Amino acid sequence: VEILKNRIIRDGLAVGSEILKVDSFLNHQVDVTLFDLIGAEFRTRFDDVADKVDKILTIEASGIAVAAFTAKYFGSVPVVFAKKEKPATMTDGYYFAEVMSFTKRTMSAIRIDRKFLKAGERCLIIDDFLAHGQAALGLVHIAAEAGAEILGAGIVIEKEFQKGGEKLREKGVRVESLAIVEKIENGEIFFKV
Amino acid sequence: VEILKNRIIRDGLAVGSEILKVDSFLNHQVDVTLFDLIGAEFRTRFDDVADKVDKILTIEASGIAVAAFTAKYFGSVPVVFAKKEKPATMTDGYYFAEVMSFTKRTMSAIRIDRKFLKAGERCLIIDDFLAHGQAALGLVHIAAEAGAEILGAGIVIEKEFQKGGEKLREKGVRVESLAIVEKIENGEIFFKV
Repeated sequence: VEILKNRIIRDGLAVGSEILKVDSFLNHQVDVTLFDLIGAEFRTRFDDVADKVDKILTIEASGIAVAAFTAKYFGSVPVVFAKKEKPATMTDGYYFAEVMSFTKRTMSAIRIDRKFLKAGERCLIIDDFLAHGQAALGLVHIAAEAGAEILGAGIVIEKEFQKGGEKLREKGVRVESLAIVEKIENGEIFFKV
Repeated sequence: VEILKNRIIRDGLAVGSEILKVDSFLNHQVDVTLFDLIGAEFRTRFDDVADKVDKILTIEASGIAVAAFTAKYFGSVPVVFAKKEKPATMTDGYYFAEVMSFTKRTMSAIRIDRKFLKAGERCLIIDDFLAHGQAALGLVHIAAEAGAEILGAGIVIEKEFQKGGEKLREKGVRVESLAIVEKIENGEIFFKV
């Protein structure tokens, strides 16, 4: 966790009071050594439920690599990533949730093929960011529709001031965030300690 | 390679004569154990240039996990994935290529931030599919613009009959495909031997 926080401070860029740019190691360029450490840390956080995890859920695109490295620490369970576009090859039924992007001010949809999420499956959500929580809430919605159980959500960076974590916790989701940003002010990043 | 081919035969689904659906282990649900083997196999194929690889390039979304697992076998070099949408946080200059999707019959663009691809950097392209080659050719175009060098392209499944491999090789790109599909006929998948 300290490695991650130091990396955010060193390479992250605060834009205004809302945006934290970490594209040099997390969501455009990817540091796989760091991702491996992140996977190990999620295992530690969710060690009490590790035996129960049937599947890891995430959302394309930047969630995929974190989720895949995390899966290795949970017995290499399958990773299912929700898609943002309807692929030409997604011909069967799928679960669907609407997601609002606050940064882009657009609505979009995420989809998971019904084949890959079944009633009774116990899932861990893994994602790189938790901001307003729309994407994660979309996954929670899809899981409920499928009758799957969410064991928890593992987040690399939670921006606490955008309330996504609060919303998830209100829905009874256990949230484990590796770095929690309390506020961004004058280009400085303040972590919750 | 045999493991991969058997998996394609067992879990892949041929749709018409053009589409091969492998979403149960490659591009919607992800089998990380298989991805680890794929990464090791790419290392074997590109062992002669392994010391020279500065960076791995791929395209979101389904290329990311393969590229990330492959990076581990090349000294954990950074993975840069080209983005299909312009992110709100991509404020600086970026390299850009137009890409046509044959399945969706739409044009789109891929982008890489200029910060993450520099002149002289030697790159390996890693992607899950090579069909018409539009995405890979887009990366080659971007690399040329950046003055970066492409050491080769590692592809999990090449659909030879859609000529993407031919186009890349014509441009002087060394292509290493783990499974080469010659044709799809009556729901049957024929591999090149």
